[in-house]
Amino acid sequence: MYAGVIDELIESFERLPGIGHKSAERIAFYVLENMTEQDAERMASSIVTAKKSIRLCECCQNLTDESPCRICSSSKRDRSVICVVEGPEDVSAIENTHEFSGLYHVLHGALSPMDGIGPDDIKINELLLRLADGKTEEVILATNPTVNGTATAVYISKLLAPFDVKVTRIAHGIPIGSDIEYADKITIVKALESRQVMN
Amino acid sequence: MYAGVIDELIESFERLPGIGHKSAERIAFYVLENMTEQDAERMASSIVTAKKSIRLCECCQNLTDESPCRICSSSKRDRSVICVVEGPEDVSAIENTHEFSGLYHVLHGALSPMDGIGPDDIKINELLLRLADGKTEEVILATNPTVNGTATAVYISKLLAPFDVKVTRIAHGIPIGSDIEYADKITIVKALESRQVMN
Repeated sequence: MYAGVIDELIESFERLPGIGHKSAERIAFYVLENMTEQDAERMASSIVTAKKSIRLCECCQNLTDESPCRICSSSKRDRSVICVVEGPEDVSAIENTHEFSGLYHVLHGALSPMDGIGPDDIKINELLLRLADGKTEEVILATNPTVNGTATAVYISKLLAPFDVKVTRIAHGIPIGSDIEYADKITIVKALESRQVMN
Repeated sequence: MYAGVIDELIESFERLPGIGHKSAERIAFYVLENMTEQDAERMASSIVTAKKSIRLCECCQNLTDESPCRICSSSKRDRSVICVVEGPEDVSAIENTHEFSGLYHVLHGALSPMDGIGPDDIKINELLLRLADGKTEEVILATNPTVNGTATAVYISKLLAPFDVKVTRIAHGIPIGSDIEYADKITIVKALESRQVMN
């Protein structure tokens, strides 16, 4: 029904994560109705520029436009701690807390035998190579508390056993500000198991 | 924290309707991590192409790449009925029902004194001009059932009084498939007021 170019625009937005047909349509009409031609061009060029200039940091494997990345090359970071996460969005979430001053290692996924994703498909070898210099004292496994994320954490902790590093896992429990009555059973069990002495 | 180009990409997605910072971040990382460079370029060019080639149909004012648009120039449409809507997305929603075979008129907004949007800011004059040829028998006012949409419908119906056309308003009531107990009071009142004889 639409002009072909509108359909193509809608389809290209529909391919993005979390955007259904309805939202894609709404975004397309917004671009056509409310954006200036200049803004639309700026948006298009930021997609192409970012895609072209972004690569993986040779050290932590995070997305960056300079390698090593800003975090890896910063003199203010504690180089004795590496926090291992599944994706760049996790680095972003942890950085936003301003409470972690160590380094990161981005796996770009988690082990998933069902999807054929094995140890060689994510950046595990790159993590082992980083431990070679002996400067790392602790590796925090901050993969997601899902089946795959947990399996990945267990797998890596076994691989790191021969190394002289402390391996820790982020805590699981009731999220701050939420109600215990709405928490799922497994989270409640984890929260009870990981209970801490208060006095 | 991110490379500047990633921040710019996130910001450009954040400007789109219905996309918060978190979704914008997720989309940006998807573009950077999961899209091929070719796909990203195709997306960018579809934004620029659509923006450049789309204009308003000289007749119905809908977005189109050829004027008059496909609907206005189709020989299969009933030229005696014009359905007046606020935006192109409404045309799309009505067309998807495949139950309306008349023409459309897109106002590109609704009257909104609070926001300084008066009759000259939306395509009302263009509607009056279309009635000049005397071929229109019915104008269906399908603006949204909001304060502004209703005010616009009332305003247009008064403007059309001197013309020899039937002016109708789409029905309001309980949406099909929903529960009466969850409907808001005004909708229930409207549904009662507009009750229809069944036998």
